[in-house]
Amino acid sequence: MPTYSLYETLVAVQGGVAVRIPFGPDFRLPDALATTGARLTFLCNPNSPSGTAIPIADVEALARALDGVLVVDEAYVDFADANAMRLVGRLPNVVVLRTLSKSFSLAGLRIGLAFADPALLAGLRTVKDSYNLNRLSQLAGEAALADVETMRAHVARIKTTRTTLVAGLARLGYDVLPSQTNFVLARRPGRDQAPVARALAARDILVRHFPAGLGDALRITVGTDAEVAALLDALAALR
Amino acid sequence: MPTYSLYETLVAVQGGVAVRIPFGPDFRLPDALATTGARLTFLCNPNSPSGTAIPIADVEALARALDGVLVVDEAYVDFADANAMRLVGRLPNVVVLRTLSKSFSLAGLRIGLAFADPALLAGLRTVKDSYNLNRLSQLAGEAALADVETMRAHVARIKTTRTTLVAGLARLGYDVLPSQTNFVLARRPGRDQAPVARALAARDILVRHFPAGLGDALRITVGTDAEVAALLDALAALR
Repeated sequence: MPTYSLYETLVAVQGGVAVRIPFGPDFRLPDALATTGARLTFLCNPNSPSGTAIPIADVEALARALDGVLVVDEAYVDFADANAMRLVGRLPNVVVLRTLSKSFSLAGLRIGLAFADPALLAGLRTVKDSYNLNRLSQLAGEAALADVETMRAHVARIKTTRTTLVAGLARLGYDVLPSQTNFVLARRPGRDQAPVARALAARDILVRHFPAGLGDALRITVGTDAEVAALLDALAALR
Repeated sequence: MPTYSLYETLVAVQGGVAVRIPFGPDFRLPDALATTGARLTFLCNPNSPSGTAIPIADVEALARALDGVLVVDEAYVDFADANAMRLVGRLPNVVVLRTLSKSFSLAGLRIGLAFADPALLAGLRTVKDSYNLNRLSQLAGEAALADVETMRAHVARIKTTRTTLVAGLARLGYDVLPSQTNFVLARRPGRDQAPVARALAARDILVRHFPAGLGDALRITVGTDAEVAALLDALAALR
């Protein structure tokens, strides 16, 4: 924690018991994640809302240390420098999740992918919904995956704009964690950012504020160059 | 039983224990369905694969007799003379299911609807998938429901063709249960229909044969007038 909040909901839906392991301020892999005894361990990598990434060697060491299954949620990995796909098959307890909702810009189609050892996937198949993807999503997904170059071009543009955004936020006094995603987490240690988020919203600029534990931070999605310029201007005017 | 086979799979996926109540040969509501003590009772009405329908008064009596929830799966109800929607809200333990996969011809979009007392629906909402319908399915579903007249025209045509199919099958010696669906169950008591189904398949005419318990029956979907004529010709040639 903090991480993608839906994991906790899904654990509750299944009647499971969630064990929450906090990140330190540097968002490195917490040692305690390897010793929970959990049957299922979630690692969002790169992580949301921090935007940070754990080195794949550390992910591999975690998978080897666990008795249970390690789910590596790589929703944002196309914006990152490395991914854990090479662990799939080599380690029987690793599931890598991908989505077409982020880098492929197909959020409305709800397409996700799971990669794991065939034995593990066979178990998942016995309980998955039948027809969990509809025909239109299947066709759109096939078309998107047949054109990875378009995705890569979008990602390259977003990473360039991310650099501009990070530099601008730093000039305005924000500490920005190194981002491997299409958003950044910008902090002003000790200063509540809720009023800032509200003031931006009044200017039709929507950023995310997490009151619990990250009150001094804003999560800002990398928009177009014009949107980032507008955000930085608005933040400068709010100082 | 016999009924839609997915119920049993879903019960198993949830770790439940299935209690199977057999229909009699007339496919009337079995008295024993009211006294299983089940927390959840499924009634496919009209039923598949029989095509028969239970009178709504009997469905209401069943709902009142049950301590648990009664799910009335009305997947085929647009092809029937009556439906149980008036029970929703009046009886807090009734869920009526509909689908756009049959009468609305949108099987590829996987759109289902549940109607029930708000308190019961609130419970379902706590465990349902987030984003279980994607954007394209939502838009297609909205468009389909805004044009019920097209569905009704298709249904009227299918019901007319159904009459032709039933008459033709009767001439060929089949006992056909009164159908309230877009298919018919045609039986030749005591005569295995597996060879007939195979012979039809060799002519590219696909009908459904259920070896377990309904070996002397074929489930035949109502196609176009031309398809029904081709089927009847093929069956006549096989005699």
